[in-house]
Amino acid sequence: MYAAIDIGGTKIAVGLVDRQGDLLARHEHPTPAEEPMTAVESLLGRLMADPRWERVRAVGIGSAGPIDAAKGTVSPVNIPAWRDFPLAARVADLTGREVTLAGDGVAMAAGEHWRGAAKGRENVVCMVVSTGVGGGLILGGRLRPGPSGNAGHIGHMCVELDGPPCPCGARGCVEVIASGTAIAARVGSPSAAEVAQAARAGDPAASASFDLSAKALAAAIAGTAALVDIEAAVIGGGVAKAGELLFGPLREHLKEYARLSFTREVTVHPAALGGDAGLIGAAALVRHAEPERAA
Amino acid sequence: MYAAIDIGGTKIAVGLVDRQGDLLARHEHPTPAEEPMTAVESLLGRLMADPRWERVRAVGIGSAGPIDAAKGTVSPVNIPAWRDFPLAARVADLTGREVTLAGDGVAMAAGEHWRGAAKGRENVVCMVVSTGVGGGLILGGRLRPGPSGNAGHIGHMCVELDGPPCPCGARGCVEVIASGTAIAARVGSPSAAEVAQAARAGDPAASASFDLSAKALAAAIAGTAALVDIEAAVIGGGVAKAGELLFGPLREHLKEYARLSFTREVTVHPAALGGDAGLIGAAALVRHAEPERAA
Repeated sequence: MYAAIDIGGTKIAVGLVDRQGDLLARHEHPTPAEEPMTAVESLLGRLMADPRWERVRAVGIGSAGPIDAAKGTVSPVNIPAWRDFPLAARVADLTGREVTLAGDGVAMAAGEHWRGAAKGRENVVCMVVSTGVGGGLILGGRLRPGPSGNAGHIGHMCVELDGPPCPCGARGCVEVIASGTAIAARVGSPSAAEVAQAARAGDPAASASFDLSAKALAAAIAGTAALVDIEAAVIGGGVAKAGELLFGPLREHLKEYARLSFTREVTVHPAALGGDAGLIGAAALVRHAEPERAA
Repeated sequence: MYAAIDIGGTKIAVGLVDRQGDLLARHEHPTPAEEPMTAVESLLGRLMADPRWERVRAVGIGSAGPIDAAKGTVSPVNIPAWRDFPLAARVADLTGREVTLAGDGVAMAAGEHWRGAAKGRENVVCMVVSTGVGGGLILGGRLRPGPSGNAGHIGHMCVELDGPPCPCGARGCVEVIASGTAIAARVGSPSAAEVAQAARAGDPAASASFDLSAKALAAAIAGTAALVDIEAAVIGGGVAKAGELLFGPLREHLKEYARLSFTREVTVHPAALGGDAGLIGAAALVRHAEPERAA
């Protein structure tokens, strides 16, 4: 049995996940602007009151980034109260269990590899396309958190040398072209979901905005395939819910950008885990941590 | 003792490399347009006549790509006579030794990690910037050839969605902007070395051509750091011989593109192995092969 914590800018969730990857208990709380740790403490209190808690061997935390896995700290862009906050040590103190911390994109990849669309695949990039663009990597059948716990940040690969400024400070990052925020902003719409509706109703500007997002994602997936040699990309997050509106042009653009003998067969798949992906992924981090450390 | 074979479009070299990574014997031959295998056979014949041959445990081959490590075949762009040529099996038959095959960028990374500028580093991208742009990855202290043996192809990451067409068939690849070929073509010069001379003599167009190459390389290194979490980039090849003319602007552009907490400390280093890099790298492939397979 694993305990899982999913830290996001809008909500914090905790859960119990069994060794098969089934989520057995779940509690959540909106992320407090001040003292977010009080929410974590209260949620963990409920989890530790569960009779199954005694079977928990370790705690996995997937957190909005950036994080520092070596130091066990988090500095989520959307949780300004936490800067270099020692979340791993605090959770270890509270629970008396070993803690594994990674970025939320890494956790998502771990979860999709355990129970989702990356299951059985050895070399995959998993992506979350929503407000931003995050991700994580499975390489050689193993999670690749990297020394910082942040590997897989495909959203901050540059696909336009002189492209639009990105909130990260660089220019032309995938995120600033492909995210739901970018899809909506290009047509002055409040959300990517509304742009999707307009595209389905025949609005060419709305379709073009999805197409440009798909093009940037395709270039990044092709570049990832050239760089690390992957067989597949798994895409989740709110924007992926647009379905073929995103995946159709993405597969077409991928044919244009993935031209090497070892990249042109790369396939694209919708993520399979739904709203529980964050918790199942956080539990999967624990599962992956031991072989990863031994490697 | 290892035997090493370095397959390039202009020459084929073979050598004996001891367990410390010292090159003890070296023979080479221009790459024949027809029947290139005859050159490999004759070179290996000379190597096998060496009294030290009996101590050779295995053969490493670094070949111009693309290659297919799983099938043991090579299809080097610049050696049209070889398409899906079963080089690994042919060399195994000739020598009676186990053979490890990878792309030349992967071999270069293995060599720089063993004896060069990547030594002692755990997470590094190694690049060759010359006629094209190739590379290889060290991740978690291990070579990452990937399932195809081609991982590390940083030259085919896209940094301009609508950039110039690349010989690979895609657009805006790093290679088509940053290679020596591109540096020379932009100013109508026969070679990047001559552009470097002109830049040193104060020609602003020549400097600008190096600067654009450095910018594309910086964006790709920053993207690589975001994607796989590396601490350093090692750059070799003919264009790297321009020294600070390339490395100066590259470090400046890297500050613009590498802005995440875990990417902004990435450092850039000239490759340390010279003309023997291909052979030492090919030998290093053998050295890396066993732990890699076990992983």
